[in-house]
Amino acid sequence: MVRQPEIAKLGHVALVTTDLDRSLWFWESVVGLEVVERADDTIYLRACGERDHHTLTLRAGPASVVDHIAWRTKRPEDVELFAQQLKSHGESVHAVERDRERGQGKAIRFVPPSGHVFEIYYDIEKPPAPIDKRSRLLNSHYRLNAPGVGARRIDHVNLHAPQAAESVRWFEEVLGFKNREYIVDDADAIMASWMSVTPLVHDMAVRSAPDAQPGDFNHVAYWVDNWQDVLRAADIMMENSIDMLGPGRHGITQGMFLYVLDPGSQHKLEVFSGSYLILDPDWEPIKWRPQDLDLGIIWWGPKQPGFARDHHTPSARLSESLTAGTAATR
Amino acid sequence: MVRQPEIAKLGHVALVTTDLDRSLWFWESVVGLEVVERADDTIYLRACGERDHHTLTLRAGPASVVDHIAWRTKRPEDVELFAQQLKSHGESVHAVERDRERGQGKAIRFVPPSGHVFEIYYDIEKPPAPIDKRSRLLNSHYRLNAPGVGARRIDHVNLHAPQAAESVRWFEEVLGFKNREYIVDDADAIMASWMSVTPLVHDMAVRSAPDAQPGDFNHVAYWVDNWQDVLRAADIMMENSIDMLGPGRHGITQGMFLYVLDPGSQHKLEVFSGSYLILDPDWEPIKWRPQDLDLGIIWWGPKQPGFARDHHTPSARLSESLTAGTAATR
Amino acid sequence: MVRQPEIAKLGHVALVTTDLDRSLWFWESVVGLEVVERADDTIYLRACGERDHHTLTLRAGPASVVDHIAWRTKRPEDVELFAQQLKSHGESVHAVERDRERGQGKAIRFVPPSGHVFEIYYDIEKPPAPIDKRSRLLNSHYRLNAPGVGARRIDHVNLHAPQAAESVRWFEEVLGFKNREYIVDDADAIMASWMSVTPLVHDMAVRSAPDAQPGDFNHVAYWVDNWQDVLRAADIMMENSIDMLGPGRHGITQGMFLYVLDPGSQHKLEVFSGSYLILDPDWEPIKWRPQDLDLGIIWWGPKQPGFARDHHTPSARLSESLTAGTAATR
Amino acid sequence: MVRQPEIAKLGHVALVTTDLDRSLWFWESVVGLEVVERADDTIYLRACGERDHHTLTLRAGPASVVDHIAWRTKRPEDVELFAQQLKSHGESVHAVERDRERGQGKAIRFVPPSGHVFEIYYDIEKPPAPIDKRSRLLNSHYRLNAPGVGARRIDHVNLHAPQAAESVRWFEEVLGFKNREYIVDDADAIMASWMSVTPLVHDMAVRSAPDAQPGDFNHVAYWVDNWQDVLRAADIMMENSIDMLGPGRHGITQGMFLYVLDPGSQHKLEVFSGSYLILDPDWEPIKWRPQDLDLGIIWWGPKQPGFARDHHTPSARLSESLTAGTAATR
Repeated sequence: MVRQPEIAKLGHVALVTTDLDRSLWFWESVVGLEVVERADDTIYLRACGERDHHTLTLRAGPASVVDHIAWRTKRPEDVELFAQQLKSHGESVHAVERDRERGQGKAIRFVPPSGHVFEIYYDIEKPPAPIDKRSRLLNSHYRLNAPGVGARRIDHVNLHAPQAAESVRWFEEVLGFKNREYIVDDADAIMASWMSVTPLVHDMAVRSAPDAQPGDFNHVAYWVDNWQDVLRAADIMMENSIDMLGPGRHGITQGMFLYVLDPGSQHKLEVFSGSYLILDPDWEPIKWRPQDLDLGIIWWGPKQPGFARDHHTPSARLSESLTAGTAATR
Repeated sequence: MVRQPEIAKLGHVALVTTDLDRSLWFWESVVGLEVVERADDTIYLRACGERDHHTLTLRAGPASVVDHIAWRTKRPEDVELFAQQLKSHGESVHAVERDRERGQGKAIRFVPPSGHVFEIYYDIEKPPAPIDKRSRLLNSHYRLNAPGVGARRIDHVNLHAPQAAESVRWFEEVLGFKNREYIVDDADAIMASWMSVTPLVHDMAVRSAPDAQPGDFNHVAYWVDNWQDVLRAADIMMENSIDMLGPGRHGITQGMFLYVLDPGSQHKLEVFSGSYLILDPDWEPIKWRPQDLDLGIIWWGPKQPGFARDHHTPSARLSESLTAGTAATR
Repeated sequence: MVRQPEIAKLGHVALVTTDLDRSLWFWESVVGLEVVERADDTIYLRACGERDHHTLTLRAGPASVVDHIAWRTKRPEDVELFAQQLKSHGESVHAVERDRERGQGKAIRFVPPSGHVFEIYYDIEKPPAPIDKRSRLLNSHYRLNAPGVGARRIDHVNLHAPQAAESVRWFEEVLGFKNREYIVDDADAIMASWMSVTPLVHDMAVRSAPDAQPGDFNHVAYWVDNWQDVLRAADIMMENSIDMLGPGRHGITQGMFLYVLDPGSQHKLEVFSGSYLILDPDWEPIKWRPQDLDLGIIWWGPKQPGFARDHHTPSARLSESLTAGTAATR
Repeated sequence: MVRQPEIAKLGHVALVTTDLDRSLWFWESVVGLEVVERADDTIYLRACGERDHHTLTLRAGPASVVDHIAWRTKRPEDVELFAQQLKSHGESVHAVERDRERGQGKAIRFVPPSGHVFEIYYDIEKPPAPIDKRSRLLNSHYRLNAPGVGARRIDHVNLHAPQAAESVRWFEEVLGFKNREYIVDDADAIMASWMSVTPLVHDMAVRSAPDAQPGDFNHVAYWVDNWQDVLRAADIMMENSIDMLGPGRHGITQGMFLYVLDPGSQHKLEVFSGSYLILDPDWEPIKWRPQDLDLGIIWWGPKQPGFARDHHTPSARLSESLTAGTAATR
């Protein structure tokens, strides 16, 4: 009997930006991520509450794309088990060598039906914070209260898909995600789903977007601890002339949000807090019908969608993702 | 040498509502004001942090109007001094007898150029909170954390005026208000002003509104202590299906806001926090030009004006205000 | 190959109180829990963010004791699997019939080495909130902003044990808890552990207390969403003359705390927020040595332990727990 | 008829420190004040919400003393009027030349019965913030969210006095302060008073301290906007190993507090928020008797006084204050 492999959590998002300097300024000085390492053409960052080597990477490129979205497994052997499982589903699976991404072990990459480049890995280094930035608290790597927004940890990604229903089913069956809350259309077909492998309401949201191209990426979210921290983030974004929408509170997920655009890449970030945890083992997915969406999308806050709903950035093609940053391409 | 009379603070706002039961439910159970007394056809309310007998009154009427806006003077003799000063400016001044409004001493009413009915008084009773609602803190009448939003104190009023510039000048010259922040048009004419007699940025805002009728009333504001309290108010308003706009933060005043409509009367309330105090004796009024307003009106929050900007309720005519609630009219 | 049974989460805590009226007033009106049902001599309560039938029960008794601490499993069959596993460890396991506790399916009770009465169950009803208290949000049973403190969900329990090290090992081996943070003495022996089956830092803390008797219970914790909510809780507790210690912030768990005593029973409640989530699959337990405890126990806040550290209430004996509230004893 | 001179607000506190580098690091990097100017041996600082040239000055000296505490008048002529009034009360008044303190006009210094060196002035420059630190908001000099604690403005000073009752009477009669809240002993004699010339509950507190020497200084307070900002300040202080007591909430003033020691000078700072405004012209001072103090001093928070109550630093002698920093002494 073969144990099912399991995803433990969202690992990192690898971004390509047309303006690396400006993107780095944004993620480091405004959002408050810490630079862990610069190697080859990539900058590795993590939030002040994180131990893994990186949860965001930045690399300069001719177009601002999402190179890949990476997930950490629960056990070392799950990487290989996922590879087998994906192949048995007819997917094409590509190996990524140890240390191809700094601090990281062997990984696999593949393209789910949503068209994004996904990566799965287990091994990741946990370098300590530099002495001058280290917290006095043994359970915090970096000092509490990072500069800028002071994001604490990566929270989730939000993806567009040409056919959300199909992607949702695939993520459930092949990767083990659970549908926590979802939107249906008048014909009761799934139009969007908030899915998780953790007690978070969502590690990943998937949504049918008008004219979505495979791989369209809506946003990555970082967590702050309190509602007020989202308001403070809004002040900081405004002082730095960052395009933003919010703050507000979603009905779906009950999360507080602030959407902002990385001015170097136009990739979108959600500063996120609140929400709730799902610890119930028999959670019934919450169904939102068209007539419920007025409360569901925006419980309070900006009612016009602005760039929050439709703005997106594309994904790299798998072939690009697999070769970029390697010796051959440098 | 005659000393100038001075206004100490915004005293109260007297509202007439077409649905008294619903308005009372809103102000008492949702906003969290305390009913101090019911007498004749009027309900007297105050916030949990207030000692004066009332800062809001509700009375049923055939139309939802603002009966009057009342200001407390610094000294008892200021009421008479203001009466003289108003007459010397050619204004018509009307006496209101002691206890015509419960708990209140002699007052005067008059109509400034903005067309609202203003009242000026000094004497006001300070009844203690009932035993079962009394705070253990000697400096707080009511228990901290009133039900609902738990507003702490009245903060300011916002008035429309056919010609803001004229009204602003009049409020400066005759009533001693100071211009703290203001908006000009391209010809440098004052279009709006945030004015105060206290260190608050505004006890009263006056604004030229398109097609404003004399006496048009934009809103009354109550204060809460923290930014988060405004967010909590938003949740409470949503659960109670109250029409609202916000939360957000103004540039002008730096105040956090949530605009809501009393469902019984359509009078508008702003739940307000943040902002700053002006203790400088030589404060230079802050001028906002048309090109500054994008940041000035809404620093962050809902960018569409919704009902926040234009929705208003009318004022009673002075003659109605002077006779309403008296024996003759009951 | 037999799958390991797994605990999904802390289910409920069953309290016996010598003053039921006063305890009910405290948990319902001050803490803000909702009464779901009264049946026989027991009152069933849950927090406004919860769907399970109850997370706290109150019953009158001759002494204030903890009747039992209950855990929900991940799958229905885990109850029986745990029973077998416990028996194979030489533990005495007692069946509790369906609906012996209202809304609940079949359960087992047993006494771990710490001396507390533990219960394990899976089936639990999820009654909807009554219409007049129901949230407009589909993913929230009750309206947001319950009265009083407005606790959102049960969070954890804190237990004393004569020998914490032994209990910690047993909870790891037999029940599958993971050690997340722990305190050692100068000889490197475990003196306390914060343990969880969820990504919470702790669902349960176990601590060697001086002169601890088997079954000594330190506190149950309920969660609020923001740091400020803990401060608001402090105001509410003070106005209601509740004995309390805090607010403050622990180093261990990074959680914000306020400790209060149920005035009817002297059982202790922690109002809890902040802390962090452990999503890493390879979390290394954080070791706190004696010299680290000055920061670890109280990062900031009241430095004297007061009743937070030593105050405790006893557990019922298993035989009492098994017969109380049954027909025979009514 | 001579108009009474009036104090508008607390102007600044001039501190002497035995470790200027460490004090500067504390006030600039930890508290978040901005350095406006360095001239001669003095560093001039202000908070991000302030326009006056300075509200705190630092100067190196052989002992950590408070050089003087300065108050701004309402009108230019009030400085001379106060000089006359002080002389008529038999006080010795000393002139301080324009620009002796940078950016400041003519001032007077004198020693009230409490033994502190007081300064009174009106003229003060209002230099704009440097371009790279300037807020996009026209009504804020510096960007919102200064580094570190991000204090917004100076709030009050707290002074010891050998005989508080005498000092309180003198501050009322000669300087026009109003007694807002006060403590009496069993014989109804004033032991402490919270006094203000503004609607703040206190611009200055005066307290009889055991064995107080004339001029003993308890603390200077800076304001932050929200309760949560005080908690955030606590994290920042702890990460920087600053001695502190709190956070907590006073009953008297209802203010949230965090007391910390400047590690360079041992001068004490209170990070302060909450409290309430007194806009009532007929405010009755709140009397706290010995039996009320358990709630009055600490409503919640650390019950042990620690360094908050008794720690103090001395004042410079007037002769030192008048000559220090002048050419003769450089």
